[in-house]
Amino acid sequence: MSDLWSEMAKRAKPYEAGEQSLRPGTVKLNTNENPYPPCPPVFKALESCLGSSLRTYPDPNSSTLRQAIARLHGVNENQVFAGNGSDEVLGFAFMAFFRTDRTIRFPEVTYSFYPAYAQLFGIPYEKTALREDFTIDEARFFGSEGGVIFPNPNAPTGIVLPLSAVRDICMNNGDRPVIVDEAYIDFGGETAISAIAEFKNLLIVRTLSKSRSLAGLRVGYAVGQEDMIEALNRVKNSFNSYPLDRLAQAAAQAAIEDESYFNETVSVIKRTRETAQETFVSLGFDVLPSSANFLFVRPPVLPAEQLYRELKDRGILVRHFKQKKTEDWLRVSIGKEEEMAQLYRELADILSAAIQT
Amino acid sequence: MSDLWSEMAKRAKPYEAGEQSLRPGTVKLNTNENPYPPCPPVFKALESCLGSSLRTYPDPNSSTLRQAIARLHGVNENQVFAGNGSDEVLGFAFMAFFRTDRTIRFPEVTYSFYPAYAQLFGIPYEKTALREDFTIDEARFFGSEGGVIFPNPNAPTGIVLPLSAVRDICMNNGDRPVIVDEAYIDFGGETAISAIAEFKNLLIVRTLSKSRSLAGLRVGYAVGQEDMIEALNRVKNSFNSYPLDRLAQAAAQAAIEDESYFNETVSVIKRTRETAQETFVSLGFDVLPSSANFLFVRPPVLPAEQLYRELKDRGILVRHFKQKKTEDWLRVSIGKEEEMAQLYRELADILSAAIQT
Repeated sequence: MSDLWSEMAKRAKPYEAGEQSLRPGTVKLNTNENPYPPCPPVFKALESCLGSSLRTYPDPNSSTLRQAIARLHGVNENQVFAGNGSDEVLGFAFMAFFRTDRTIRFPEVTYSFYPAYAQLFGIPYEKTALREDFTIDEARFFGSEGGVIFPNPNAPTGIVLPLSAVRDICMNNGDRPVIVDEAYIDFGGETAISAIAEFKNLLIVRTLSKSRSLAGLRVGYAVGQEDMIEALNRVKNSFNSYPLDRLAQAAAQAAIEDESYFNETVSVIKRTRETAQETFVSLGFDVLPSSANFLFVRPPVLPAEQLYRELKDRGILVRHFKQKKTEDWLRVSIGKEEEMAQLYRELADILSAAIQT
Repeated sequence: MSDLWSEMAKRAKPYEAGEQSLRPGTVKLNTNENPYPPCPPVFKALESCLGSSLRTYPDPNSSTLRQAIARLHGVNENQVFAGNGSDEVLGFAFMAFFRTDRTIRFPEVTYSFYPAYAQLFGIPYEKTALREDFTIDEARFFGSEGGVIFPNPNAPTGIVLPLSAVRDICMNNGDRPVIVDEAYIDFGGETAISAIAEFKNLLIVRTLSKSRSLAGLRVGYAVGQEDMIEALNRVKNSFNSYPLDRLAQAAAQAAIEDESYFNETVSVIKRTRETAQETFVSLGFDVLPSSANFLFVRPPVLPAEQLYRELKDRGILVRHFKQKKTEDWLRVSIGKEEEMAQLYRELADILSAAIQT
């Protein structure tokens, strides 16, 4: 830490992303990526961009992409903001809606990027306790001083809050922003986008990294009333006018518009999740009811961290969060059937070896 | 402006990017894009990314790209930071190095994004007067309270500061950051990267949007001592872990590594600039001595704004900045020879018509 650093750089407590797999052949079930490739029209769209237009700036407003998103959700284009991955969109939302003099709330067990944003921008926050069963008690989010943010389904639990509860949180926060991070909503639960018209304080954040298989391309977006979208645009245009490159805009639009591929791959992942749920239970794990493309599981016999390490030694990456409330659990992304089968075999092997010793 | 907006959203005064050309066939000389396409290896690199790896997150640290940049400049990888366009890199630099309680300095005529960043983050600033001839008087940047930032060559003047002056600014700012925005340095002047080893307070920011023809792909980077790069990483990892998508990382690396194409296209642009300089003078314009891929010119006979509009009516976009010190001038990007020829014809036509009336 140096004299050259700003107060912001000094107080930052950076987010740690899930590790990248370095060994080829690793089964990567640690960052909730989609095991299936992007839809074929994505590649057609990308090929059509491989020309000299790359020398010119992209559309700073991502207009065509935003129109496609607006059509998908039945809203208008001015109710949509597009950014360089939902992490950037969340970052802009922290800047645009949360204040340094009002305490915000998010769940005590949640996406670990939220405290990193709050710390960076000097926004005070309190972690709202979950119930014993890891569900969110929506009433604890009512009447916040500075606004609230939570993922729905929550991460890393995978537990979804019903739309009625999301609406109650909006209703009981008056003119304080309610940011709902729907990164995983396509895998279960009901989106709150239908409530946008009713609540001026509601912002929904989405990503194309999960259900649309485009983690490698960094595209996220937000949906809300025009007043909230305008605030995001003001911040974006004071920071980076062109957050989405030409290729990302074109590919994202293609992915948004291919409904049948989307439905098919999401269905397969949901079916694999149901099987995984049953298999973990049969192996003696506790499993939270997931509406996402991952499961949060508590292993029998072995401590979670040890199991994480033994799996890693065998070429399977899952995610372990060392914090107090989560240290007994592992988050396992839903992979392809064959990847999951390999996981089950290794788990059975590790657990039976542990019981025998 | 709404009750929902943060103080940051309310105080923001967004940057206005140069207009996009909507009419096909427009000669676009208003955003300093490179008239030549990216080098052929860029397209090969992109094609090799068109596979299922797009479903997985990119390398958050852009390691391979940063290694290529390090080789290009003869520095080490930990002295390089990569981001989503140099605008994002500049944004991170404002966050990482400038403070809300210390006044920074930048030239009164300069890249108009600097005041937008400062305004957003609540960083006090003073605009340092240029000399009458639009050159920077380096002594006016000595002993700043909070640090300094300037483009070299400056924009929109195109005038370059010699390396000795840049070194003097570093030397006379002790432990205050000196950020040199070298967006246009490949078109003239001497980079200050050689001074990195000597000055712990020096950060150089670069873009691939100009000399490398990749404006459509959004890649920029910074070079500085490890301590400064670490501050940028802390801010980045508290805001967006994955700023560069897979395609951008691969294409940028290919562009960085093709030295001969780079040298060739930069030479052509410099030659075209010399001809343009002479032609503008012969048409009666005042022309500042440019080391960039644009010229800053003051028209005879007609007010600059009127000439801007008449050119636009004839399908040629140049840039007019309405601020007091620049309102009599136009910034003209260097295009292809044939685009410039079309510009000269229209200029001659407009000016002779204006003289006759």
